[in-house]
Amino acid sequence: MKEGRKEELKANRKLPFVGLVGVAVGLLTTATRAQDPLPSWNEGPAKQAVLEFIKVTTTQGSPQFVLPEARIAAFDQDGTLWVEHPIYTQVMYCLEKVPDLVKAKPELAKVAPFNTVLDLLHGDRAAMEKLTLPDLEKIAIATLTGMSVETFQAEAKQWLAEAKHPRWKKPYTELTYLPMQEVLKYLRANGYKTYIVTGGGQDFVRVYAEQTYGVPPEQVVGTALGTKYGYAKDGKPFLTKEPKLVLNDNDAGKPESIHLMIGRRPHIAFGNSTGDQQMLEYTKAGDGARLAMIVLHDDATREYAYGPAEKLPDTKVGTFTQALFDEAKKNGWTVISMKNDWKKIFAFEP
Amino acid sequence: MKEGRKEELKANRKLPFVGLVGVAVGLLTTATRAQDPLPSWNEGPAKQAVLEFIKVTTTQGSPQFVLPEARIAAFDQDGTLWVEHPIYTQVMYCLEKVPDLVKAKPELAKVAPFNTVLDLLHGDRAAMEKLTLPDLEKIAIATLTGMSVETFQAEAKQWLAEAKHPRWKKPYTELTYLPMQEVLKYLRANGYKTYIVTGGGQDFVRVYAEQTYGVPPEQVVGTALGTKYGYAKDGKPFLTKEPKLVLNDNDAGKPESIHLMIGRRPHIAFGNSTGDQQMLEYTKAGDGARLAMIVLHDDATREYAYGPAEKLPDTKVGTFTQALFDEAKKNGWTVISMKNDWKKIFAFEP
Repeated sequence: MKEGRKEELKANRKLPFVGLVGVAVGLLTTATRAQDPLPSWNEGPAKQAVLEFIKVTTTQGSPQFVLPEARIAAFDQDGTLWVEHPIYTQVMYCLEKVPDLVKAKPELAKVAPFNTVLDLLHGDRAAMEKLTLPDLEKIAIATLTGMSVETFQAEAKQWLAEAKHPRWKKPYTELTYLPMQEVLKYLRANGYKTYIVTGGGQDFVRVYAEQTYGVPPEQVVGTALGTKYGYAKDGKPFLTKEPKLVLNDNDAGKPESIHLMIGRRPHIAFGNSTGDQQMLEYTKAGDGARLAMIVLHDDATREYAYGPAEKLPDTKVGTFTQALFDEAKKNGWTVISMKNDWKKIFAFEP
Repeated sequence: MKEGRKEELKANRKLPFVGLVGVAVGLLTTATRAQDPLPSWNEGPAKQAVLEFIKVTTTQGSPQFVLPEARIAAFDQDGTLWVEHPIYTQVMYCLEKVPDLVKAKPELAKVAPFNTVLDLLHGDRAAMEKLTLPDLEKIAIATLTGMSVETFQAEAKQWLAEAKHPRWKKPYTELTYLPMQEVLKYLRANGYKTYIVTGGGQDFVRVYAEQTYGVPPEQVVGTALGTKYGYAKDGKPFLTKEPKLVLNDNDAGKPESIHLMIGRRPHIAFGNSTGDQQMLEYTKAGDGARLAMIVLHDDATREYAYGPAEKLPDTKVGTFTQALFDEAKKNGWTVISMKNDWKKIFAFEP
């Protein structure tokens, strides 16, 4: 036992109430800690920005108080709520649905780009490089349209239950960021309606958003293809997914879709790439308290590191340019450093 | 005093507790009446259908119980929630905005169809007959697009505060149907999310839907023109309303928009015209308890009478054909007769 501790005990023996005060303070500290709504965040400006935003917008009498009905929060998904590398989950879905497609239409097995996808799925990693954007669009149309809404939902649900991320060997829905899950819950606990505003497919994300994020289908805004109303042979009506783009929920499409689908400007928005720039600008341009936050993937060890902002490696998937980083700094957006701001990234971490 | 009443009083004097029982029964009846969630409805199959639907879908243990998150209700607006004759309110808005338009662009005063509208507004009722559907579209584009979203909202709000319906000389927002307001409230009290699914303009209806119906902007689905994201001279971003149709929320467009905007099939839907047919079919085609209801305007005295179903006068505004009436009967939709099912139509009635 060290001398100081001995002295302390002696003092306590002499003044028993000091010990009681110590216990009381200890309990109080524990209680405060248990109430931390963002335990997976390290202390710092990012965590502080969220806490401060909630405080000023939900405290009665605060000059920045926001009426409960106007409490709208918008979250990009890929790279903001869950992992987007090495490639967007929905692209994996489309690629991995190609074998089913070929089973139904065997003639496609020798037709590009479907043959390239089969090579890729059989281990030829170089095949990925051969796929162009028009190829990916062709594959998306072939795997996401032509079936009823219910058939698509069932197929996506089954795939999500079985597919595994190549690095963590876990279902994609387990690769959500715990700190962001905490923010979603904390915002909802304070009366915010949490929306996902994603460049990904609206119908795809709606399949799992409620279970994965607590976000119901009607609060998922995404890139959307049209549907066509028709009747089955027995006269029962149904909707078929059509190869017709209705919403391109990227870049300027994000604020445009927010207006169409929600009709109110968010008070807080989260993104991570150039595709989120306009949504964050639009959010910040509103009156009163508005918070824009942007996730920087700077943690190659626990997740991935890419930018090219801040001299991080360049990427085509979830690009965060230096220009965007500079705009963030200039406009008072808060950059979230995965490495520094997140104590824990995934719920499954020890 | 009549003999019977005298006898009653005498009996009560002899048996005081009978009087107390009478009072108790009276109180009980009053209490039951006070709890009637649909006091403006006459007893009958329509009122019963709503009460029964709520009972079976919200009583725990009921085989037709609907999970709270799946409780979606869809209401057409024009002719279902408020008056649509002699012409849709939004058409009146577009016509009455023409003088402002001409003030800003004087050269339009002599150009068709704007000159025809000016004649109409100056009392030439016959001018209305000259306006074709392409004319109305031209007027809609001129009065609903080319301005920022906020400018449009402010203009529509001001018009709604000042404009009066030609028959009742009251603001249009006072011409909502009290029985339907009761249904909206009753559904919400039972955990249903109430949506407006209207052929009218989404942006227009959103201006007043929260105050008028308790339906927030994000629960208004309507015909929608696109917006375009851009920047003002000071760099501030804003959305401009564009002459580009994104959603045509009529006929098959209603279930298609419901899928896009809500992503869940309603359990209960209300309409009043051929434009609602597919929404009602789609609603009824779902599993479990589904209720489709359709308002028949058969009350020329208190509101209007039009069909041409059931030999009511024909109309171009809110057409309810005999074929639709027959489909309603065949498919188990409930027809609401304004005349017979509604005790009171407007809140301002004595």
